[in-house]
Amino acid sequence: MKELILVKLGGSIITDKSKPFTVRHDVLENLGREIHDSRREKDMMLIVGHGGGSFPHTSANEYQVQRGIINERSWEGFAKVQNDAAKLNRIVVDTLLRVGELPVSIQPSSSCIARNSRIVSWYTDPITKLLDNGMLPVPYGDVALDTEQGCCIVSTEEILGYLAKELNGSRIIMVGKVDGVLDQEGKLIQKITPENFEEIKSCLNPSDAVDVTGGMMLKVERMLELAKFGVDSIIINGLKPGYLKRVLVGEDVQGTTITI
Amino acid sequence: MKELILVKLGGSIITDKSKPFTVRHDVLENLGREIHDSRREKDMMLIVGHGGGSFPHTSANEYQVQRGIINERSWEGFAKVQNDAAKLNRIVVDTLLRVGELPVSIQPSSSCIARNSRIVSWYTDPITKLLDNGMLPVPYGDVALDTEQGCCIVSTEEILGYLAKELNGSRIIMVGKVDGVLDQEGKLIQKITPENFEEIKSCLNPSDAVDVTGGMMLKVERMLELAKFGVDSIIINGLKPGYLKRVLVGEDVQGTTITI
Repeated sequence: MKELILVKLGGSIITDKSKPFTVRHDVLENLGREIHDSRREKDMMLIVGHGGGSFPHTSANEYQVQRGIINERSWEGFAKVQNDAAKLNRIVVDTLLRVGELPVSIQPSSSCIARNSRIVSWYTDPITKLLDNGMLPVPYGDVALDTEQGCCIVSTEEILGYLAKELNGSRIIMVGKVDGVLDQEGKLIQKITPENFEEIKSCLNPSDAVDVTGGMMLKVERMLELAKFGVDSIIINGLKPGYLKRVLVGEDVQGTTITI
Repeated sequence: MKELILVKLGGSIITDKSKPFTVRHDVLENLGREIHDSRREKDMMLIVGHGGGSFPHTSANEYQVQRGIINERSWEGFAKVQNDAAKLNRIVVDTLLRVGELPVSIQPSSSCIARNSRIVSWYTDPITKLLDNGMLPVPYGDVALDTEQGCCIVSTEEILGYLAKELNGSRIIMVGKVDGVLDQEGKLIQKITPENFEEIKSCLNPSDAVDVTGGMMLKVERMLELAKFGVDSIIINGLKPGYLKRVLVGEDVQGTTITI
């Protein structure tokens, strides 16, 4: 059985969060090339998910879709956020095709159901068959129907976490624009475990917690949950050339590892 | 229980088949407005599917994806056709949003599995929940994983037929750029039933049979199958103003009805 690795391309690295609907094409293409190069060097199964960045975040904030169906405009928000998120997915898939990969878009909103923003069922047969055939499934942070709230946003971490557990993934690589989790002096925290998490929590920048998918603290908590199931995560800086490729082929790079 | 109606916007009417990736924006927007107007007049559940027209047909023909995994380039074709089909879906969803509808894209390739180009399983929970909440699911002709051929194309007829059976649809409206099925003298055939189908078959233009989803004859055969399950179909001319709206609200218009 080949190793299954799951990669998240953060919305904040592949888009310009300060301007709606702007892609950082150079960054996206470089990361795409590193993914493609690593796949030519090492035989592995790979899922590449991505965040929405400046695409759905404007409409998600306007309609507060992450809070569920809260007023008569919420379903309109659901439709708009789904559309905005899917637009970036097309650009990511286009880019991955251009660098020689075989990306296949996976739309979470049409294939999973959530409860309180956590995925509770997902028809993953298409993804399994794609992986078996060497294809690159590309899911993305999306809206979803939610049995409690009516609707929700499923974050890329939630998506990759669910798939990692369901499909026996070995590790998750989170690609952002910072070196990893930093302490209050800006120093990189190399390893987060259940033992040191409570102490580290107080160091995490609280301003991170305001985005619609919950910020860094929630991300690390999700990854610690996964670590208990044997899925380690690493947060790396995707702006540093070669980092993503090196992690993918199994080399050590600087970053924050989340493990037990 | 509200009536569930399924509409197909033909790829040949919403795109310009002679030029790759060209949308007939005026036609698409008019049809969108008729759908929206009808929904304000009549309380019903609606699914609006669409064909791919000039978007995926170039890549589908190049790679012959409808024949399955036939050579070492087939999976590349799968990825490209999926991307091309999804691009038109974005434009259709954008247009439906603009006219005031609440469209939600449904990507068949990430939610169903086929066998010999027929859908054999589909996770339809998201669609059911969307319909229950007055939303407008928008699936489209797409690639799919296929348990026999490896991959296939699932046509919009196949998609709407499967959903009509699964979700108890009452009728299917096929919107094209001709008045319906024409006989050899170009006269409209008003009704096709299992009784007159064999005779009519000889009148159908065989050149229709060459497109990647099988042409008019296959479409009518699929609709006759559905009629046996109580789902009638009508083929209408979407270029005639008001026709789609009139059919949706239950009025009679000129077209070909397929029934038992």
